[in-house]
Amino acid sequence: MYLTQGLHRAAQQHPDGIMTICGDRVRTNREVRERVARLAGALREVGVGDGDRVAILSLNSDRYHEYLLAVPWANAVLNPVNIRWSPAEIGYSLRDSGTEVLLVDDAFAAMLPAIREHHAGLRTVIHCGDGALPEGALGYENLVAAAEPIEDARRGGEDLAGVFYTGGTTGFPKGVMLSHLNLGTSAMGGVASGFLFQPGGTFLHCAPMFHLADFAGWYGQLLIGGTHVMIPAFDPVATLTAIQRHRVNSTLLVPVMIQMLVDHPAVADFDLSSIEAVMYGASPISEAVLARAMKVFPAAGFTQAYGMTELAPIATMLGPEDHRAGRLRSAGKAVSHSEVRIVDTDGTEVARGTVGEITVRGGHVMLGYWNRPQDTAEAVRDGWMHTGDGGFMDEQGYVYIVDRLKDMIVSGGENVYSAEVENAVAGHPAVAACAVIGVPDEEWGERVHAVVICAPGATLTIEELREHAKTLIAGYKAPRSLEIVDALPVSGTGKILKRDLRDQYWNSTGRQVN
Amino acid sequence: MYLTQGLHRAAQQHPDGIMTICGDRVRTNREVRERVARLAGALREVGVGDGDRVAILSLNSDRYHEYLLAVPWANAVLNPVNIRWSPAEIGYSLRDSGTEVLLVDDAFAAMLPAIREHHAGLRTVIHCGDGALPEGALGYENLVAAAEPIEDARRGGEDLAGVFYTGGTTGFPKGVMLSHLNLGTSAMGGVASGFLFQPGGTFLHCAPMFHLADFAGWYGQLLIGGTHVMIPAFDPVATLTAIQRHRVNSTLLVPVMIQMLVDHPAVADFDLSSIEAVMYGASPISEAVLARAMKVFPAAGFTQAYGMTELAPIATMLGPEDHRAGRLRSAGKAVSHSEVRIVDTDGTEVARGTVGEITVRGGHVMLGYWNRPQDTAEAVRDGWMHTGDGGFMDEQGYVYIVDRLKDMIVSGGENVYSAEVENAVAGHPAVAACAVIGVPDEEWGERVHAVVICAPGATLTIEELREHAKTLIAGYKAPRSLEIVDALPVSGTGKILKRDLRDQYWNSTGRQVN
Repeated sequence: MYLTQGLHRAAQQHPDGIMTICGDRVRTNREVRERVARLAGALREVGVGDGDRVAILSLNSDRYHEYLLAVPWANAVLNPVNIRWSPAEIGYSLRDSGTEVLLVDDAFAAMLPAIREHHAGLRTVIHCGDGALPEGALGYENLVAAAEPIEDARRGGEDLAGVFYTGGTTGFPKGVMLSHLNLGTSAMGGVASGFLFQPGGTFLHCAPMFHLADFAGWYGQLLIGGTHVMIPAFDPVATLTAIQRHRVNSTLLVPVMIQMLVDHPAVADFDLSSIEAVMYGASPISEAVLARAMKVFPAAGFTQAYGMTELAPIATMLGPEDHRAGRLRSAGKAVSHSEVRIVDTDGTEVARGTVGEITVRGGHVMLGYWNRPQDTAEAVRDGWMHTGDGGFMDEQGYVYIVDRLKDMIVSGGENVYSAEVENAVAGHPAVAACAVIGVPDEEWGERVHAVVICAPGATLTIEELREHAKTLIAGYKAPRSLEIVDALPVSGTGKILKRDLRDQYWNSTGRQVN
Repeated sequence: MYLTQGLHRAAQQHPDGIMTICGDRVRTNREVRERVARLAGALREVGVGDGDRVAILSLNSDRYHEYLLAVPWANAVLNPVNIRWSPAEIGYSLRDSGTEVLLVDDAFAAMLPAIREHHAGLRTVIHCGDGALPEGALGYENLVAAAEPIEDARRGGEDLAGVFYTGGTTGFPKGVMLSHLNLGTSAMGGVASGFLFQPGGTFLHCAPMFHLADFAGWYGQLLIGGTHVMIPAFDPVATLTAIQRHRVNSTLLVPVMIQMLVDHPAVADFDLSSIEAVMYGASPISEAVLARAMKVFPAAGFTQAYGMTELAPIATMLGPEDHRAGRLRSAGKAVSHSEVRIVDTDGTEVARGTVGEITVRGGHVMLGYWNRPQDTAEAVRDGWMHTGDGGFMDEQGYVYIVDRLKDMIVSGGENVYSAEVENAVAGHPAVAACAVIGVPDEEWGERVHAVVICAPGATLTIEELREHAKTLIAGYKAPRSLEIVDALPVSGTGKILKRDLRDQYWNSTGRQVN
């Protein structure tokens, strides 16, 4: 398997089919193949050698798509940069991976001097925006126009496809090395599930393309040879507009994006009937949000995917049928390319229903962490990726994640899982979105604390919320305090940054603030 | 990817789901996992070591299924033997591959002494039938009952999964080395096509399980976790009975089997409404047979797969929609795991519509031929498998095979492709099945000659046939002679053995017989 294979096939079978739509730019499969062959030629001309890393720091665009194809075509290695990072973090990841060539768009061009401060080895910058050329940068379109097209190196199989720095919410970034086979295995498994893609259909990239969640959608869509629509970044109106205008069939969202779409005041003005599949990740969806989403997207099947960058990224899926059956607290079952086991600290499989560490095996398990053999050896043992996530499996193989992002609250000696409380809180009609964390409490050690965005025009008291929650969950799990906010802090991929919420209450060593 | 992965997943997610049905034996996913772990233990106990080849010579059965899983579980390598071969050919393939352990069923136990004559190194024979134990053989069920279950070696990825001797209709058998990844790539691509498998559905093995065509169906069905029904061998009534009794959803056939089913006098007595997918290979289907098959299997989508053992085995597919559109002469388009190019003798891609050699690239291309590095180097160049099949590609990427089995007739200096003539001949209402070959002719060099099985009660003259054919194809392509037969010679996989038909007219050096 190789990333460029789908491009060859699309150009062969549907040369005049539309491959990318980005703003007013529309390109056919044949055009994209030609442009990719030229961009790859340009990369070689600027000195990119076999296996060299080439980074991109950009909002979503059709040029991002071309970058993802031209780099392996040129026998080089991808390095998509997390767009939420500081110049110091970006500089670190470029330095760590020895990346000398960077594509940057208008949104991030102003960061270049600061990035250079942290990474003196940045040799070549290619400007993939439409605005003014940053000083010292080469123009993307000039390069494509001037370069000689080259033959596809057909880099593939076990060859390194990319170094993907984990932009997780905890810990120091590590470069996850994924092969073409890793990425292809996960994408093929996604397609084989039948949940996500329609041959010849249209996929919308509104989640950031640097992240492997959207990348999985990108690669699956490439395999089935459909059309990619890109908007620069998630925004409710831009997303709704793109769906209506381009009759989008599938997209990747995170629950907080789904909530923002379905609760948008203008949502009823848009024709969203074309959406057949919504894939979401990063966190479970609440029943309340799902119920609203099912009304807004009447033709859609909803699928949750669970995984991580190290799994390229899909391990389990919860498909549309399970959503209709209301099995929303599960992250789904191992998909066709993936084997999942819950193990104890000795690596022994635990009994069903018992919490342990989620481990995963298959062709999608990463090659390792860049330059970190020790970390690799700890994470991947006998072929099993140790995810660091706690969870249990039921008798039918459904995986339940109970400790996502270390998300357990210990209150009065009892373990309280935030996901369960969040699900109860989200069911209150006044709640548009919420996060539940543990905060310091003299009496309970930790106290269950709810942070809530209210629905338009609604109000909420802690008493009302507790009363509602206690109809659904045990009293000790119901929130004891409430904070109403206008917005929740989210990561570049739409994960709610509970760390940021907790930081008001706890210091970095886990002790109470003041 | 590894062959046993689907077994683990099925046992994890549906422990009490039915995995195999063979005669009156019905086994659950949990039972099969347990039996496979024991059979693997038994193989190690009888001395099978890492990477050792273990062969099977057997009709279809649930034990064949267990063999396919237990061998990699034991960290060994499969070697399924062509059941149509002579003892000399079988002995050759076992000797060539250094196979010391053989499973044999009742149908082939009598061949053991003759096989031993050709392969003195056959150390251990395991009897997987239900009849009397052959002399010196170990009993399969005794081994399973007595052995300690072992941990799955999880042999996978680039590890050798099996040596599959090509049972083609020409040339000397070669052992095709396929990795788990090769087989998994092709199977995953088959599932991803969406044409063939229904999660939780039932697949019937009536084509021989030693052949990779049925193997592809077996592996795909394993990936989606459904039920396998085995009948010992293809027989119209047994097949129809199994479909009705087990509400079979999918199966793999070859066109001659489809023809035998749909023309069977008792076909209307069976309820075949459960069949949703019929995959066929080896040769194209005629419009006439397809039209009858669509009536007999009203709920079925028909899919042609083209490939070869060296491609593990799928390269292109012609899906149900193309069948409904009548595009029957094409072998379909490259599927999601496969890249296909038509090249000239220099390896340069030819223009669309121009005949050249079909070449294929992807994760499904074999590791190579066992102990034949020279043959491997000739077949696989720069990652491209050179199939030896001639064909062309149209503007939409559809592949047309014009020279399958060197199947071109040169008559009066004109090239005549048998497939085209066969399609015309098959459309005559008196024709149940046919093959068209070139035979020596003083006037024309070669003469287009039709060999026909008549429909029940029908008669046919060469004049009637020519008149009909000329309404569809040029006069020089219409058959000039006709032979009515009761049966056509077919290979173990149902391919019509044109070589055998030609042998009456040509000697082995291509010269006219007498």
